[in-house]
Amino acid sequence: MRRILILNGPNLNLLGLREPEIYGRETLADIEARCRDRAERLGVALDFRQSNHEGTLVDWLHEARDGADAVILNAGAYTHTSVAILDALRAFEGFVVELHLSNIHRREAFRHRSYVALRADGVIAGFGWRGYLHAMEAAAEALEARR
Amino acid sequence: MRRILILNGPNLNLLGLREPEIYGRETLADIEARCRDRAERLGVALDFRQSNHEGTLVDWLHEARDGADAVILNAGAYTHTSVAILDALRAFEGFVVELHLSNIHRREAFRHRSYVALRADGVIAGFGWRGYLHAMEAAAEALEARR
Amino acid sequence: MRRILILNGPNLNLLGLREPEIYGRETLADIEARCRDRAERLGVALDFRQSNHEGTLVDWLHEARDGADAVILNAGAYTHTSVAILDALRAFEGFVVELHLSNIHRREAFRHRSYVALRADGVIAGFGWRGYLHAMEAAAEALEARR
Amino acid sequence: MRRILILNGPNLNLLGLREPEIYGRETLADIEARCRDRAERLGVALDFRQSNHEGTLVDWLHEARDGADAVILNAGAYTHTSVAILDALRAFEGFVVELHLSNIHRREAFRHRSYVALRADGVIAGFGWRGYLHAMEAAAEALEARR
Amino acid sequence: MRRILILNGPNLNLLGLREPEIYGRETLADIEARCRDRAERLGVALDFRQSNHEGTLVDWLHEARDGADAVILNAGAYTHTSVAILDALRAFEGFVVELHLSNIHRREAFRHRSYVALRADGVIAGFGWRGYLHAMEAAAEALEARR
Amino acid sequence: MRRILILNGPNLNLLGLREPEIYGRETLADIEARCRDRAERLGVALDFRQSNHEGTLVDWLHEARDGADAVILNAGAYTHTSVAILDALRAFEGFVVELHLSNIHRREAFRHRSYVALRADGVIAGFGWRGYLHAMEAAAEALEARR
Amino acid sequence: MRRILILNGPNLNLLGLREPEIYGRETLADIEARCRDRAERLGVALDFRQSNHEGTLVDWLHEARDGADAVILNAGAYTHTSVAILDALRAFEGFVVELHLSNIHRREAFRHRSYVALRADGVIAGFGWRGYLHAMEAAAEALEARR
Amino acid sequence: MRRILILNGPNLNLLGLREPEIYGRETLADIEARCRDRAERLGVALDFRQSNHEGTLVDWLHEARDGADAVILNAGAYTHTSVAILDALRAFEGFVVELHLSNIHRREAFRHRSYVALRADGVIAGFGWRGYLHAMEAAAEALEARR
Amino acid sequence: MRRILILNGPNLNLLGLREPEIYGRETLADIEARCRDRAERLGVALDFRQSNHEGTLVDWLHEARDGADAVILNAGAYTHTSVAILDALRAFEGFVVELHLSNIHRREAFRHRSYVALRADGVIAGFGWRGYLHAMEAAAEALEARR
Amino acid sequence: MRRILILNGPNLNLLGLREPEIYGRETLADIEARCRDRAERLGVALDFRQSNHEGTLVDWLHEARDGADAVILNAGAYTHTSVAILDALRAFEGFVVELHLSNIHRREAFRHRSYVALRADGVIAGFGWRGYLHAMEAAAEALEARR
Amino acid sequence: MRRILILNGPNLNLLGLREPEIYGRETLADIEARCRDRAERLGVALDFRQSNHEGTLVDWLHEARDGADAVILNAGAYTHTSVAILDALRAFEGFVVELHLSNIHRREAFRHRSYVALRADGVIAGFGWRGYLHAMEAAAEALEARR
Amino acid sequence: MRRILILNGPNLNLLGLREPEIYGRETLADIEARCRDRAERLGVALDFRQSNHEGTLVDWLHEARDGADAVILNAGAYTHTSVAILDALRAFEGFVVELHLSNIHRREAFRHRSYVALRADGVIAGFGWRGYLHAMEAAAEALEARR
Repeated sequence: MRRILILNGPNLNLLGLREPEIYGRETLADIEARCRDRAERLGVALDFRQSNHEGTLVDWLHEARDGADAVILNAGAYTHTSVAILDALRAFEGFVVELHLSNIHRREAFRHRSYVALRADGVIAGFGWRGYLHAMEAAAEALEARR
Repeated sequence: MRRILILNGPNLNLLGLREPEIYGRETLADIEARCRDRAERLGVALDFRQSNHEGTLVDWLHEARDGADAVILNAGAYTHTSVAILDALRAFEGFVVELHLSNIHRREAFRHRSYVALRADGVIAGFGWRGYLHAMEAAAEALEARR
Repeated sequence: MRRILILNGPNLNLLGLREPEIYGRETLADIEARCRDRAERLGVALDFRQSNHEGTLVDWLHEARDGADAVILNAGAYTHTSVAILDALRAFEGFVVELHLSNIHRREAFRHRSYVALRADGVIAGFGWRGYLHAMEAAAEALEARR
Repeated sequence: MRRILILNGPNLNLLGLREPEIYGRETLADIEARCRDRAERLGVALDFRQSNHEGTLVDWLHEARDGADAVILNAGAYTHTSVAILDALRAFEGFVVELHLSNIHRREAFRHRSYVALRADGVIAGFGWRGYLHAMEAAAEALEARR
Repeated sequence: MRRILILNGPNLNLLGLREPEIYGRETLADIEARCRDRAERLGVALDFRQSNHEGTLVDWLHEARDGADAVILNAGAYTHTSVAILDALRAFEGFVVELHLSNIHRREAFRHRSYVALRADGVIAGFGWRGYLHAMEAAAEALEARR
Repeated sequence: MRRILILNGPNLNLLGLREPEIYGRETLADIEARCRDRAERLGVALDFRQSNHEGTLVDWLHEARDGADAVILNAGAYTHTSVAILDALRAFEGFVVELHLSNIHRREAFRHRSYVALRADGVIAGFGWRGYLHAMEAAAEALEARR
Repeated sequence: MRRILILNGPNLNLLGLREPEIYGRETLADIEARCRDRAERLGVALDFRQSNHEGTLVDWLHEARDGADAVILNAGAYTHTSVAILDALRAFEGFVVELHLSNIHRREAFRHRSYVALRADGVIAGFGWRGYLHAMEAAAEALEARR
Repeated sequence: MRRILILNGPNLNLLGLREPEIYGRETLADIEARCRDRAERLGVALDFRQSNHEGTLVDWLHEARDGADAVILNAGAYTHTSVAILDALRAFEGFVVELHLSNIHRREAFRHRSYVALRADGVIAGFGWRGYLHAMEAAAEALEARR
Repeated sequence: MRRILILNGPNLNLLGLREPEIYGRETLADIEARCRDRAERLGVALDFRQSNHEGTLVDWLHEARDGADAVILNAGAYTHTSVAILDALRAFEGFVVELHLSNIHRREAFRHRSYVALRADGVIAGFGWRGYLHAMEAAAEALEARR
Repeated sequence: MRRILILNGPNLNLLGLREPEIYGRETLADIEARCRDRAERLGVALDFRQSNHEGTLVDWLHEARDGADAVILNAGAYTHTSVAILDALRAFEGFVVELHLSNIHRREAFRHRSYVALRADGVIAGFGWRGYLHAMEAAAEALEARR
Repeated sequence: MRRILILNGPNLNLLGLREPEIYGRETLADIEARCRDRAERLGVALDFRQSNHEGTLVDWLHEARDGADAVILNAGAYTHTSVAILDALRAFEGFVVELHLSNIHRREAFRHRSYVALRADGVIAGFGWRGYLHAMEAAAEALEARR
Repeated sequence: MRRILILNGPNLNLLGLREPEIYGRETLADIEARCRDRAERLGVALDFRQSNHEGTLVDWLHEARDGADAVILNAGAYTHTSVAILDALRAFEGFVVELHLSNIHRREAFRHRSYVALRADGVIAGFGWRGYLHAMEAAAEALEARR
């Protein structure tokens, strides 16, 4: 059974609460529930986490080396500032999807640079919470194709 | 019935023929066939076109104002150089997905700038031909949500 | 009798339809009609065209070498990206007016660069459709002064 | 009766004397005379001033808040360096035309930046002294349209 | 009773010990004591914390959503590098003061960029430990004015 | 008795009149009155001036060499463009506070550079007219500490 | 028999007519005639074309995949702006010569960037119409060496 | 007895596992063992640690103020992004060696900037795990020279 | 008799008083006295002025068109910010010497740009007050050579 | 009889030995022999030299003022760094060809700048050792055309 | 027996004489003596040279192709300006150590770029004359490891 | 007796021969003769040299440490590219004048940067050969003042 790890970075625990006109009104718990449904339908195991700590995200990506076939990473603000996360992603050999709720290229200039993009296999952005499900579909399909 | 227009820009008519290590071995006709299948399954009408001419892409985007509910645009090289296409997209009021076969942020620096991104609602990149199907799913779902 | 060629670039065929808060509600046909009136009053011949194709605008500028005494060019998005149009303008020896409906310096940074400006004799921007008439007056007067 | 204030910045008192190959041979007094004629024809009141002092131009723009419906500003060198004049323009609620004798985009790079442009409604450049008259026509017409 | 949260970022626990010619000789405990006195005088509740961990600062800013009316943030080095803290500040709806002991614009170039400034309502810098008290006064007064 | 000189730069004479959503509705005379009250309470002599002329501000800063113990400078637009004012500040040996009504780092990019900051001891920005009073408090306290 | 395709970009149809002090007085037809003579002498087949349309040049480069062993490309203004032509060149596996009449590095800064150079095997510039013949010699010799 | 603290930053716990063609096949435990041997030979006390958390590295550098005579810091990705670590290093008064396994100047551009270098006394890079031993030798010798 | 105009810009009235370690201890009056001696010896008429007002310097340069054969300009801070002074210098046809007391290229980066240099015939910098005399010698000699 | 001077810059004495995948396997002596054959066939005198010393190349270019009608310069690394060689080329009035074995625009960014290009009449790059012969042909032909 | 070549660039012949607060008081002869001792202890042959001439350093690096197993290069000022030395290093296949007495990243910005670093295997900087011995140890060890 | 060393850099041996409209018609020998006359009049010893070799100029500057009280350096093209000469100048403790025949700030952008300026005490530029004499006067006077 394929295992997918979904990692959420800083401030995503506030989803549905802050700036809903940008990020929508679904909470992270709502999204996790939808992802669990989809995981079941896709027949994959799901691990879903969130942290505001860069180092914790690095630690979890290290765990993914043995514990996941694909990582879906919504690194939030660390997308734009963390070389450490990029290096941790490079130590992971599975499939990587970079995920954003909004289209970061329509926001401030400092959000246009993505260190995650330098390792990601695929990118999905701008579809709000639905993007989590699209990313899961895409990851599952890509894993299937790699067999 | 929802109508989706998929527009392909310059050199995409060579898909499957040039640089397959980057773009894969599926031809554009293969992809179109897969998209037609998916359109049927999704219950949407599909219009699928390709041109090497910037002006023609602009013309087609103008047609989309009356003829499509969503545009999926793989603008190829014009992604990075065409303000005209951006302006045409801004004249379209439906849903817009920016699509790329590869993750453009892992390629040459001049491919990191996207004019299309300044208007796109969502972005999907790096999933090869499968990205077309993901984009269709995402567009169909977004149209549904907008009703 | 003096001949003035007014060339309109990409997306200007949508005038009055797209983003009216920026560009106003007059269509390009409305503007052409006003220009024809003004041409009559000024006693000049008018040729008024629009294309979304960079190459076509280049072709028309070549025609202007024998067919026009002044060119009024609203190059739209190609203002900012087309060296080819600049080169074609340089091959034209008559009077050149660069025209914009809006003040491009109050819009996105990538609209601040104008290749057309490197050849234009005069610039008129920000007066909406009235700018076409001001440009005709200015061109007619300049041609008169050059005799 | 509409009131137009024409403000001329530094060195414009030397018009007709310095670098005539760029600026022409008409003196500022000649131009003022032509503007007075045109004002009469247009039925507008004209106030025409020149100063080499940035602070004086700021003072006069403050006066314009109560004393003018439109400002035509040829700020000369201060176009490129004065944020103070920009702020004064922003405190004026009437119509603003940025005027230049030459096409500043064909001159040195440091003349390509215009602070005035960040507030100007319209821009007219490159028509020499005739530009003053075009600017008056355009301002009068715009005021008419705003009624 | 109004609640003010004062957050101190990395290395501020060393205040009074490192580089006293820049930061002065008061320890963070000294400053906290002075702040508590001032809080009493102002009739506000004070919460005063320090962490070297970016993620912890983010966590505490999330707590402030329910627990504080104003945040005074001396983010130290994270001022210049943390988009995560900016995003957390944006999720806080109260009054925000950016605080620095020294005038960061007189130090190295990489300290001139402040992500905190993109959200801060007010900025106080360069007054050493006295700045904490000025910030408390200013925050209390601003909260009063907002009632 | 300590003497404080408050200098106000270009356009600040319009306070309360222009762009009140940014600068508030208090006039400069209102602010001066509040400052005079505060001066009395603090037991300091106050000199309060405004000019739109860069050279006049330089002249006044020269006077401050003998006539003031602290300068509070709201240089307005000259903050961003005047090296002359910076040099005049460097010739003053007392305490210097840079003051802004709004947080300049949340406005246009050209307002992010401050020449005044290269000499200012302290900076206070974003508190509207209340910032004048905070600056007076801070200056008085700093002068006291320097004795 | 080796086949060489010579492609000429925008405005080259005006050769001999525009700016002769830069480009010389030979027309494109004159140059084609000289190239045909040289082709005969070299024993190669020659295809010689010109277009002002970027898309047409892309189309022709696609044809070259089956129809030419070497391409000599004088892309004119598109040299500096067309990523689409670069991508089309990358889909061609034969020998590529980048050709310019003038030395582009002695002209405006925006002509110093060449997308064509990112794929060209060899570059010949600055020899006027004689460069076409040098390029044919060089291409023929390179093809010979590759056998 | 001299005390040396060796700090390892993010992802270095994976040494020997990830990208061995860049970083070699020795694990961090292997390296620590070699360092302990060398410490014994040099007659210095060794403290050897690793963390993926920026804040933890800052905490440990604070401890070094009392607990170490020299710090050898391989900050990994934080080398390029952490001003907090730079500030912590500046609060340490002993000898500092910046260490990298690879020559960072031959890698991606964003790895060319080092905040650590702004404080380091010496730099050793590119010698793989042997660099740890060279750094220990160099630190021990420098401490000896400082006595 | 040759006439030399020496113009001094902002803050030079404080010479000998501010930052003597950079500018020396001679006052501007001292320097003027030395210049008058030298003028006598050289047999030239001398006009020596100072102003803190950019506009006044522009006015005086206009007067120089009829009243001076050479201008020696120590524009102080306006050297780096005033396009207006550059334009005024361009309207003067005599000999122009740019003068600085210190070597501006060894000071802050924003002092490296000189608008005056774009028109100056000669430059003398770094010789303190002696530079005034060198400039007078050089100007007198250059005027002699031009006869 | 026409005289051609071929100058080779630093490291070209190693041709055929270093990095043959970029520069080919022909030694400089092999190339010189081929050039001598070609000189004979073209009826020109040939002087062929190499030096690793910038100053020596400058000296030789000075000799060329009297001793050569054309210079073919493969300046190697000095192409990108030597203003001295550019100045020496400008003192030479004959025909100048800039020559490179590889296409420098496909190599590192610091090789994209060419000081030689600022003076060269023509450029030939990317044809390996054959480029020497093409350059001789082109130079001989250009000299012929100039007669 | 392993052979190590130590090359010293411009101004290093003045070591111990100029700016001793940066470079220390040991002369180059002192350092050479220490290196000879160390070479003996390491059982390697040592060649130790210095030149102020870029071309001579290039010549010596060419000799190293046959005459050395490792090069330790303290290129002094040429580190930052010489592409020729980089190219010469690339023609050498042995081990290369870049050496600096001071930490160049703490000096002027133009010393932050190192062309040598683009080829160096290892870098040692900031340890003063001791760095020569560290570099010899490191080179000897690396050569041993490569056997 | 004071000793002045005048050093001339690359291409200055061609003075009077190349580009006389920029550099004048006096040869370097003519200038040397004039300088010898002036040296006699000033009672100083003169050493006057020229080289096209950067390394030779460095060598000569080293000799100046014992052999000259002042250096007048016209470094020609090396002004803009040689850090080695800057370092050699820094090892010289006497008075340094940077000399240029033309005003380098009115020439190409790459001539605006001067490494020599980072050490020069004074700068004289734009006075042609007369600048040599002005520099000698200024150097002699400065040496006198330093006694």
